[in-house]
Amino acid sequence: MPSRQIPEASVTRLPVYLRALVDLAERGDHTVSSEALASASGVNSAKVRKDLSYLGSYGTRGVGYDVEYLIHQVSRELGLTQDWATCIIGLGNLGLALAHYGGFFARGFRVAALFDIDPYKVGGTVNGTPVLDMDDLERIVKEDSISIGVIAVPSGAAQDVADRLVTAGISSILNFAPVVLQVPPGVSLRKVDLSIELQILAFYEQRKLAEQAVREGTARTKLESYDRDPEHHDA
Amino acid sequence: MPSRQIPEASVTRLPVYLRALVDLAERGDHTVSSEALASASGVNSAKVRKDLSYLGSYGTRGVGYDVEYLIHQVSRELGLTQDWATCIIGLGNLGLALAHYGGFFARGFRVAALFDIDPYKVGGTVNGTPVLDMDDLERIVKEDSISIGVIAVPSGAAQDVADRLVTAGISSILNFAPVVLQVPPGVSLRKVDLSIELQILAFYEQRKLAEQAVREGTARTKLESYDRDPEHHDA
Repeated sequence: MPSRQIPEASVTRLPVYLRALVDLAERGDHTVSSEALASASGVNSAKVRKDLSYLGSYGTRGVGYDVEYLIHQVSRELGLTQDWATCIIGLGNLGLALAHYGGFFARGFRVAALFDIDPYKVGGTVNGTPVLDMDDLERIVKEDSISIGVIAVPSGAAQDVADRLVTAGISSILNFAPVVLQVPPGVSLRKVDLSIELQILAFYEQRKLAEQAVREGTARTKLESYDRDPEHHDA
Repeated sequence: MPSRQIPEASVTRLPVYLRALVDLAERGDHTVSSEALASASGVNSAKVRKDLSYLGSYGTRGVGYDVEYLIHQVSRELGLTQDWATCIIGLGNLGLALAHYGGFFARGFRVAALFDIDPYKVGGTVNGTPVLDMDDLERIVKEDSISIGVIAVPSGAAQDVADRLVTAGISSILNFAPVVLQVPPGVSLRKVDLSIELQILAFYEQRKLAEQAVREGTARTKLESYDRDPEHHDA
């Protein structure tokens, strides 16, 4: 029962810790230090300890955290020990990729239904899940107690789909369309922007090129100063 | 030329500001306050001002920031004013989705080549880009000066692809496979985990259900106390 208030920034890091912990468990590790968990998660260790303290998890001095128990605690905190029925709307390449994605619907998530408007797709199945007509959205959401809607339609159709999900009673929406959606208060909306990480890489790539240019410039400058002053030697 | 050191956390927020700024520009807004930009980006306004100050951008009191100029500054800082050649490895549903994704290769990114091992795919084109054999990876990376490799192969093949990208001279890798990869120092590796946002939604969905249960419990308790004490009325 989530009674304490965990800061939103800490919440966003919990899935990252969980991913790292599952990797550690698969490698056969039974305990992990906050430093090792920090390094595997790309977060500093003081922040890891603070975040986990919100879960009532403090580790043991000189030993660290019990991996399996921490997986249980983080999963429970995230609500992954429950069964969440989801649906994916839009079966283009991205929707199909999500319907097949091994890492997507593990751990408590279940794809109850797929929706599309293409009559050639409706009536089939993908990965064992039925492809239904958008006309049945409201009925199926209620019948299957679907809690989370995943939008994978083109940008132009995304707001309409979001409106229909909200009308159908869904209060958690994951949007993959590269567009800003409006939802009423009380509806949680998260967005996956596939280009964000690429832009971060461009930043570091640019920095590397600049540093390389500086190094080569420095090398040339040294060489030139050496040419001018044959007595000069670097220590 | 990036000479100042921008904190890594600030770098990861720059693409988020950029996305919000582009949305504002498309709506026809010419200026934006730090509060409005903060709200559109899901970041607090003090952090927005601090992050933008690293770019030498301070806004004008009572007016805010010039949207177009800030787009230019953030784009330049991220290195998006250059042309970055990328390649996508693996043309399953996810690779195909990325090759078609409108928001992915806008703003300075160009898909120079697609790679797969399937002989039925090799030789074709997707969205105008040639699909090449993995055997040609090293040669094409050099010939086309590809800077960023995008991994969209199954988990089991991802480390091998990462090794080959590094050997080919690529020092920026974006990994979509749900697996932890090892790369040598000096290589930037970012990972897109499509399940992270879903887990965050589960957290808030769980909290909403708990709050609802508390409210219903409270309502019932009030009703019961009312039944027991007919004189009792809530203000």
